[in-house]
Amino acid sequence: MIIFGHKNPDTDTICSAIVYSHLKMDLGVKAEAKRLGELNEETKFVLNYLGVDAPELIDNVSGESIILVDHNERTQTADGFEDAKVLEVIDHHRVANFNVSDPLYMRLEPVGCTATILFDMYKENNIKPCKKIAGLMLSAIISDTLLFKSPTCTPKDVVAGKELAEIAELNLEEYGLEMLKAGTNLSSKSEKELLNMDMKVFEVSDVKMAIAQVNSVNEEEMLSRKEKLLVEMNELLEAKQLTFVLFVITNILTNDSIGLVCGNNLEIVEKAFNEKVNDNEIVLKKVVSRKKQVVPPLTDAINAR
Amino acid sequence: MIIFGHKNPDTDTICSAIVYSHLKMDLGVKAEAKRLGELNEETKFVLNYLGVDAPELIDNVSGESIILVDHNERTQTADGFEDAKVLEVIDHHRVANFNVSDPLYMRLEPVGCTATILFDMYKENNIKPCKKIAGLMLSAIISDTLLFKSPTCTPKDVVAGKELAEIAELNLEEYGLEMLKAGTNLSSKSEKELLNMDMKVFEVSDVKMAIAQVNSVNEEEMLSRKEKLLVEMNELLEAKQLTFVLFVITNILTNDSIGLVCGNNLEIVEKAFNEKVNDNEIVLKKVVSRKKQVVPPLTDAINAR
Repeated sequence: MIIFGHKNPDTDTICSAIVYSHLKMDLGVKAEAKRLGELNEETKFVLNYLGVDAPELIDNVSGESIILVDHNERTQTADGFEDAKVLEVIDHHRVANFNVSDPLYMRLEPVGCTATILFDMYKENNIKPCKKIAGLMLSAIISDTLLFKSPTCTPKDVVAGKELAEIAELNLEEYGLEMLKAGTNLSSKSEKELLNMDMKVFEVSDVKMAIAQVNSVNEEEMLSRKEKLLVEMNELLEAKQLTFVLFVITNILTNDSIGLVCGNNLEIVEKAFNEKVNDNEIVLKKVVSRKKQVVPPLTDAINAR
Repeated sequence: MIIFGHKNPDTDTICSAIVYSHLKMDLGVKAEAKRLGELNEETKFVLNYLGVDAPELIDNVSGESIILVDHNERTQTADGFEDAKVLEVIDHHRVANFNVSDPLYMRLEPVGCTATILFDMYKENNIKPCKKIAGLMLSAIISDTLLFKSPTCTPKDVVAGKELAEIAELNLEEYGLEMLKAGTNLSSKSEKELLNMDMKVFEVSDVKMAIAQVNSVNEEEMLSRKEKLLVEMNELLEAKQLTFVLFVITNILTNDSIGLVCGNNLEIVEKAFNEKVNDNEIVLKKVVSRKKQVVPPLTDAINAR
């Protein structure tokens, strides 16, 4: 049995796969965490800080018994999905383009982070996570909720985060900011890498859109690379036959974003955010969450056509 | 907030909607059970026996906040689904053609009955169901597991059923058989009614199939109406533009079934069950569960083409 999160893995996806494989083993079930892509800078910082090995890379899950964490959509999961036996899904996203032929265990909650659900499962099984595992869950929560500042953050995430910080013996604010800043160290990345770091493809009726996001403490640095980013975005548009590509640059200190966008039907993007696209740029004031503030308005704008 | 199960409601769908609306009210949340169609004979027996009112009929859920129980597929849910706010899904089926734009609470377990999951939720909330509510959950379990004899039945359903029988003060075997037999009283039904009593439409890649099922204690009685049943099946085939229609007649005493089938690509049906279709009939030895023994082999046969 293997456990993995989405493509272009982020901290929640990697940590939740590791954490859930540990919980399974505590419950006497053999399970191995895997990953579908390269670690980002933030996740590298987390695993290095806590002294935890990265899961092994896997590119095809055909023939495997699989558990999905932190995702369910077909476009975000592993190749070979159709030929795998899907045992479970633990997730906190919308459900779309997820089809299986057999009943399964599926646990989705509208909370800020998959690890918050996993922490509940530890409690339900009366198992106390060790220091490292608590640190992984805490890191996932900090990452997904931007230290409790994202609108996706729920009271449950805050309570879990505080409890986990105690078990992990970590100073929440200090560790959290250090961790988030590690993720904004993007100067060494190529434009292609920036675009792919946290990119997800979504399908809504006949629209296929890629939405990428990076965190920064200084969006000017990112905007100075705009022309080259647009070249990569247009390449992605062609390669994946997309309607449009949206690249969201989020400032984790001010909690605002700027979007770069290219492709067709950009009136969808304008309508979704009630803002004009100027020179491939769109202002996304107080937008930090792709899941809660980007995908739903785009979905509504598409469905309202 | 309204709670409802699938179209062509069966005992689990009706009882689970009523039970969950009661649990919600116990938890201080206003929720109303609804139904998407006429009650079958078995469910009528249950509600009459326990002295519980049937939920109100609703035909469009546009604009409502909704909770789905005992189903998730688009073809099985209410009209207006796209314009409703989906808050929760509690179910025990495969997931397919279910798309929402926002994160939600979703709890699926591969158990025999939705009510088994609801009984867990009562326990998690430290609430003991009253006698009537326990009777509803018990009836749902008996119905979906054919008194624990279906291969969909899990040890968890058995344990829940036995506990619920005690709370409900009902003799499991006696009440169970009486209830199941009430559902096989089909002589007063027209062929159209028989076909629609428990009919679900499934889409797998480009195949759209309707699978209906009735329980009987004497399949000869049903087979004597074969010609008229086939007329109705062919009408359904046309009306819904289906690939094929499969009508499964299940003997609840011998736990075997016979299928009537019409339409195109019947080699899919033959391949799925490794049996020939003769004169629109196919033998389904030891098949009692649509979910576990009919839909999965058909899905595999379709995908293997």
